[in-house]
Amino acid sequence: MERTHVAYEKLRAYMAEMLEKGLGFPEETAEISSVALVEADARGHASHGVARIKMYFEEVNDGKDNPKAVPEIVHETPISLVIKGNMAPGFASSKLAMERTIAKAKEHGTCMTVVQDSCHFGMAGFWAEKAADAGMMGVALTNTLRAGIPLFGKERLLGTNPICVAIPTGKKPHFMLDMATTTVALGKIEVAARRGGTMPVGWAVDENGADTTDAISVAEINRFDKSPFGGQLYLGGAGETLGGHKGYGLGLLVELLTAGLSLGTATYDTYVKNCGICHYFQATRLDLFGDEEKIKAHVASILDKLRESPKAEGKERIYIHGEKEFERRKKSMEEGVYLDPATWERLDEFADKFGMRRLEP
Amino acid sequence: MERTHVAYEKLRAYMAEMLEKGLGFPEETAEISSVALVEADARGHASHGVARIKMYFEEVNDGKDNPKAVPEIVHETPISLVIKGNMAPGFASSKLAMERTIAKAKEHGTCMTVVQDSCHFGMAGFWAEKAADAGMMGVALTNTLRAGIPLFGKERLLGTNPICVAIPTGKKPHFMLDMATTTVALGKIEVAARRGGTMPVGWAVDENGADTTDAISVAEINRFDKSPFGGQLYLGGAGETLGGHKGYGLGLLVELLTAGLSLGTATYDTYVKNCGICHYFQATRLDLFGDEEKIKAHVASILDKLRESPKAEGKERIYIHGEKEFERRKKSMEEGVYLDPATWERLDEFADKFGMRRLEP
Repeated sequence: MERTHVAYEKLRAYMAEMLEKGLGFPEETAEISSVALVEADARGHASHGVARIKMYFEEVNDGKDNPKAVPEIVHETPISLVIKGNMAPGFASSKLAMERTIAKAKEHGTCMTVVQDSCHFGMAGFWAEKAADAGMMGVALTNTLRAGIPLFGKERLLGTNPICVAIPTGKKPHFMLDMATTTVALGKIEVAARRGGTMPVGWAVDENGADTTDAISVAEINRFDKSPFGGQLYLGGAGETLGGHKGYGLGLLVELLTAGLSLGTATYDTYVKNCGICHYFQATRLDLFGDEEKIKAHVASILDKLRESPKAEGKERIYIHGEKEFERRKKSMEEGVYLDPATWERLDEFADKFGMRRLEP
Repeated sequence: MERTHVAYEKLRAYMAEMLEKGLGFPEETAEISSVALVEADARGHASHGVARIKMYFEEVNDGKDNPKAVPEIVHETPISLVIKGNMAPGFASSKLAMERTIAKAKEHGTCMTVVQDSCHFGMAGFWAEKAADAGMMGVALTNTLRAGIPLFGKERLLGTNPICVAIPTGKKPHFMLDMATTTVALGKIEVAARRGGTMPVGWAVDENGADTTDAISVAEINRFDKSPFGGQLYLGGAGETLGGHKGYGLGLLVELLTAGLSLGTATYDTYVKNCGICHYFQATRLDLFGDEEKIKAHVASILDKLRESPKAEGKERIYIHGEKEFERRKKSMEEGVYLDPATWERLDEFADKFGMRRLEP
């Protein structure tokens, strides 16, 4: 039987088992991690889904992620938290962070939380959405491994540094902007490398810092950290003509709000001694600004106005951020979560490695 | 004598007089407005400088801005404010907002403030910087007149919706990202229209929502609101290849945080009955996250690492956001503020209209 789809809960339980047995994640961490990963696949973001088992395995295997470590709160005010991840999985420190952030925001109106010495936390939207599900605005930012080039530079010093902001609209889906500040995710460059080897100008620069369309060499440089030079560009590309200074500024802003505020490891020093990843989370109550039901309805009305406005020639729909993922998730809950052949193979590879049964669809 | 430069304080006092005598701004509003405008010219951002006297005159003359109106606080918590601008000049409501935001943040750690029914407030950086000057992180966002197109749409429903975030580094200049979320400011399209009439793909779309390089027709459509269709694109351009969905998402996020949270006028309804512009401001104490001197030093060290890193071929310098403006301002304080010939002519035009002496260099 061809393996394509698998039931959400079946996949989730399997991943929890794999993380527990194979990587030594404590049960609670394995649970939240498995939800975060399967949610990404269910929403159509395979780049942050269960195929990442390989990356998490390597983090642990290389001694850069300590699954048994316990993150701790090291500084606290009524509206802020500083958490030391102590090399625990990013899911463990982010779970602690977001739960406490939401609880404090409920009580005091807002809470801003920074986390240092964490590991990869999956997709940013998973965390920001928790605030929106609790009726609040949510923010999740993180630095990452070395990927991006400062404008006019050539060394990979910054990460893909995503920004996620979720705003409740009174009904699902929330407005949910979840974007890497680089032009594209590294995954897209890897796909371009496999499919002919060229990519558009504006995605990356070569080792001299010049625009390049050679996806193969950029993918190799980034993936294997072959050289400190060459890598991804930020939104707007290499020059100032299309706003490259703005995208670079957004990436840098995320770096300062994560590594800067937490006194943590900047992207250029991540994955040296440990993962060293830093996050920023925020939850904010809408009633800080008056009647929260009215605010949600007003936000929804602005989004409706855009949705219903005339379309560009050849276009049938204007999307609001979060809609595509919401619809894809609904389909996944009905038909099962789609995994591509490479992901099925990867799960098999790790099942064999860990002495587990292979997952059946 | 050719008129090029004018002393900062001479220009400022002249503009205060012009706003007071010509537009009927109360003295206090004229003072803060004149500083905001001259600061823009002094930093090299003529697009938000004294030449805007024309726009402010028209706002007042058309009855969309009431210079005598007094903005008022209509909702307040320890960490938030909602201000009704009552059609007062944007400088008046923003001054009240930022002063109270900073005072509340000093006391309670942070303050988030939304303003509805305001008018154009000049450059966003002027306001966010006030928080950074007080040692805090500052944010300033605003919606604007109709300028930008939702991705896959063709109607101008959103503004250029700038984002400014200022973070103190312990010494000047602060990190200060101040960017329209559109690919470029309208002023750049107007310059392209004058200089040959073409612009790069990615700046704007025509009335059918298709990519266009015809700067003349886009500049005319936007400036004179000739048609509801056609206008500026957001960072990343028209499609998803270069991240147009991300730039559009950032513009929309600003709309929701300004018009949405304040229950104010969305961009598509601004400048109908009144200006109707909405702002968002925030100030946040760094010691929410621990030792603020250490945080500033860590932020500065991240910026130094980027500055000192190897440059792309043909590039001599990697800039940090806010540096160019800081250096230009220093030069302006020494040599006088440069105004281009069109700006000198515009000041003369309004001096004549208001029966004032013309400004001498």
